Parts: sequence; C-alpha cells; structure tokens
Amino acid sequence: MIEILFLGTAASMPSRHKSLPCVAARHGSDVLLFDCGEGTQRQLMISPLSFMKVKAIFLTHLHGDHIIGVPGLLQTMGLSGRKDPIFIYGPSGTGNSVRMLMGSCEGELQYPVEVIEADPGLVFEGRGYSVSAVESDHGTASLAYVMEENAVPGRINRSKAESLGLEPKDLALIKKGISVKGVDPGEVTGPARRGVKIVITGDTRPHDRIREAAAGADMLIHEATFMNDSAELADAHMHSTALQAAEIARGSDAGMLVLTHISNRYEDLSLPEEEARSVFPNTVAARDMDMYQVSISGIRSV
Amino acid sequence: MIEILFLGTAASMPSRHKSLPCVAARHGSDVLLFDCGEGTQRQLMISPLSFMKVKAIFLTHLHGDHIIGVPGLLQTMGLSGRKDPIFIYGPSGTGNSVRMLMGSCEGELQYPVEVIEADPGLVFEGRGYSVSAVESDHGTASLAYVMEENAVPGRINRSKAESLGLEPKDLALIKKGISVKGVDPGEVTGPARRGVKIVITGDTRPHDRIREAAAGADMLIHEATFMNDSAELADAHMHSTALQAAEIARGSDAGMLVLTHISNRYEDLSLPEEEARSVFPNTVAARDMDMYQVSISGIRSV
Repeated sequence: MIEILFLGTAASMPSRHKSLPCVAARHGSDVLLFDCGEGTQRQLMISPLSFMKVKAIFLTHLHGDHIIGVPGLLQTMGLSGRKDPIFIYGPSGTGNSVRMLMGSCEGELQYPVEVIEADPGLVFEGRGYSVSAVESDHGTASLAYVMEENAVPGRINRSKAESLGLEPKDLALIKKGISVKGVDPGEVTGPARRGVKIVITGDTRPHDRIREAAAGADMLIHEATFMNDSAELADAHMHSTALQAAEIARGSDAGMLVLTHISNRYEDLSLPEEEARSVFPNTVAARDMDMYQVSISGIRSV
Repeated sequence: MIEILFLGTAASMPSRHKSLPCVAARHGSDVLLFDCGEGTQRQLMISPLSFMKVKAIFLTHLHGDHIIGVPGLLQTMGLSGRKDPIFIYGPSGTGNSVRMLMGSCEGELQYPVEVIEADPGLVFEGRGYSVSAVESDHGTASLAYVMEENAVPGRINRSKAESLGLEPKDLALIKKGISVKGVDPGEVTGPARRGVKIVITGDTRPHDRIREAAAGADMLIHEATFMNDSAELADAHMHSTALQAAEIARGSDAGMLVLTHISNRYEDLSLPEEEARSVFPNTVAARDMDMYQVSISGIRSV
C-alpha cells in the first residue's frame, strides 16, 4: 500500500487555497516527495506525515515553483537533528540548482545531501518499492516518475507442503524457488501479488512515453494546467489539458486519474474534472491535503 | 499613518500556526517587506495587502529562514505582469544571495531587480517616508531598519495671514520659510507634525545602537527568540530574550513593543509577553496576520 498526499496542487503561483507543487508518497516509514515547491515544509507540518521521514526528493524539472521548497525543508530537518543523508533526484541541472539554493543562505547542514541527476530508467530502490524516471516533454530537462511496490512472492500453503512430505526446514529452499524431495515450488506456493504502481508526471505535454510508462498504473497523477479550449496555449507552454490527461489515462488503462497543477484561472475544479471524466470517468481534481491509500484491492480517499 | 502586518512570526522554522519571518509595512500605496521568509507570497495572497504593490524588500540578514521567499514572490509578480523595478536592500552579501536564489530556478524575470547592499544610515526614500539601516548584532552581516514618515509642515492660518496683510500669492513664499511684507512664517504657520517612526530589528542580540535608533519610536518590533531563563542560549545564538527586548523598548522610550521571532518552544505566547510586560507594559507578542494602524495619535489593532 502506498499513501499519496497532495501537499501542493497549484500551477506556477500559489493561491489562497493552493500551495505550490508537491506530492508526498508514503510506503512503510519512508516518505518520498515528488517536487518541492515553496511552502512544502509547512504543508508537511500541517499534514499527518512527518517531515523528518522524508527519505528522498524527486524533482520533475527546475522551474522555481517546483523546487524553492528544498532549502527551507533541508534546513528545518537539520535544525531538528537529522543526521541521515537525503537524496535529491532530478533532471540534468539539478546539481547546480540545489547548490545555488543551498549556497544562497548562510549556515551549513550537519548531514549529507546527495544530488543525483537521473537518467531515464530505475533511479531509486527503497525497502519494498522503487522509483523509475521517464523523460517527459516540458521544453526543458524534465522527468516523470513511476513509483512501484515490489511484487510480493506467493505464500506457501503449509498444510499442502506437509501432505507432500516437506518438513519446515525444506521451506526455505522452496521460498528460493528450488525443488525439494521432488516437489516443485509452484505446487505449494500461491500466486505472487503484484505491487501498486503510481505515476507522477510533473509538468509536461501529453506524451507516448508517459502513456507507456503508466501502463496498468493504479493511479496516474497527471498535470492538467489548462482545459481543452486552451489547448493551443497548453501546447505553447508545454503543458497538458484535462482532456489530454484523460486520454493518456485511458490509453494506459490506469485505474484512476488525479489531475493536479490546474491553473488558478479555473477556480471551479469541477470543470476540468468533468472535461476529463468525459473520456476517463474515474478522475478527480486534487485539492491541497487530499490523501489516498492506494492498494491493489482499491483506492481509498482518507 | 503606517500599517504594519505581521505576515510571518516564526523563528528559524515554521509551525502549523506561524509562517517564516516577514513584516509588511504599508504607507500610501507602497508596501515594504522587512525580511521575506519562505511562504511570504502566499501569506500576502491571504492578507488584505496586494503582493503587486511591494515596492522594496529589506533583508535584515542572509539566513535562509529570512530570505527564501524572495524568488517565488519575484516570479509570481513577473507572471502577474509586473514591469516596475523592485528594490532589494540588505547587508553585505545580499547581491550574491539574491543572484543564487534567482539563478537556481530556470526562467527570466521581465522587470529589473535592483539589489543594494546597504550601509548604516538612510537607505531608501519613498513618497512621504524613508527607511534607514542600523547595524545590528547577530554574528553575521545584519541590519535593523527604521521606517519613518516625513514630518508634515505646519498649516498656514489663512485668516491670520490675511489680517497681517498677506495676499494669497504671498503664501507660496511663506510656505518656503521666507518672510514677506515683514511677516515671519512662524507668525502665521502652525507647528510641524512629526511622522510615525517604526523600528524592525530582525535577528539580533540587544544592542545600544538599536536602543538609540529606536528613540521615541511609536512601535518597536523586536525579536525575542527566547525567554530570560534561556538568556545564555540567546546570547550564544546572537538572539534576544523577551526581557531584553523590553529593556530596549524602555530605554528608547518607545510607544509600543511588539515581540516576534519567538521560538516554537514557547507555544503559549503569553509567557514571553508577560515577561516583557514586567519591564515594559505596552507589549504584545505578534501572531501571524496581526495588523496595526500606527499614527501619531495612537496605535489601533485592525
């Protein structure tokens, strides 16, 4: 199960109701942040998540509204006694941006900051989950991210194993996929359970690479800066419309679409929501502090 | 009249109830910001002040919690069509900090940013007011600021002027302080009215320079990171206690003391408030979004 918390859902600038972009994902005790707009540390303090549990930050691109929350969050973690390293992933240029953000302020952190400029593919492996990057399409170095739980191996049916003459000490080998006493692991093992898959696009035009990366995702979190009547504007600014996000969701056979990064011009979020639902019914527009528990048995708003 | 709005009253890190340091001052249509912590742009959006009216930003020092709000605010003003230059004043090193903050983010502003590393003395003259800097004592390059309305010249008593034989055309000279037809300007002019004076200390240990600069101030906004039982800690970290702030207020014969930058360890703000009141009764501890109208006839909480 992965918990998703929308800490900031604004596009470009905040509003009274929206903080700047950040999606938090919790798996076990790890918290990952996807983007880290200004105000993220305070949003975390207001939220049920602990800012001290942030393991890594994944930046989708280096526009200010997506990254300015980094130095304040890192300083506050330092003042609160953090000693563990923090990992910051992002596209080409991330090292320079983080160096400048941290260098702008006097004072030194007492823990390591590891910045990794990520190539597409697997970028991070946590305990029971991984994060991969996909090149997005925003007119600058930019990445979408796929967070995926590891598959859980099938459970051994102990009574069946016993009836086939296996002893408890044999099961360690069976778990490793090795046949014992003529019994094949598949005979006594239930089916493996897939993990949950969540895709966070960051800012991007709709793109086949994202559709492909999102194949079968439980939740696709897609930007929808504009609605379809501003499709040209969206294209010119390298953003997506709600309709385009829905087409990507349908094309990838995702379970649920969550729209975020909706321009402040759309005060009534039900408008982009309805536009997307015309193509992909299981759509919601994210509000700040919306939280979901995503498991393979379903998604629950909490 | 100067309006003072506490946009952020936290020390070092925000909390659920406190944004990072920023005091806004409005005179006429100009808004000045003293410090610009993370979240300032959103606090402005929530407040009755317009973020587009910000004329200048005065940084007290270059610790992250006081400056990280600068790039987001500048970008949002740019996206909202600002063309007027903005002026950023601060101590030595401000140019480098602002350059790094702005350089960390992709994208260019479409209006000029003028950074001025200020020496003690007069630093800014607005329409009907001025801002001066005073060296504070925070273990790094740091400034306190004095914002002061210009004195308003006394009014001419027209009937008295007429009775002394002055004609309307003579009054222009009288206004300039020139005698006409044997009439001295003082004979027909009421007393000049002093302007309001407000002092914002930023982070500092208590210091004679600030006490002297605050002489007769209508409002002294003094940091009070700690209470007196942590006076050694305050001294070691180059901060003040509530008691010390009150002693400065008493020594400067200020009209009112407002404590801010109170550590999150003091959840109950009435404790530092009471400590200060034992020395200087007219004290309050600032909460986010507290607003005051400061005029020479008195201070009104609005």
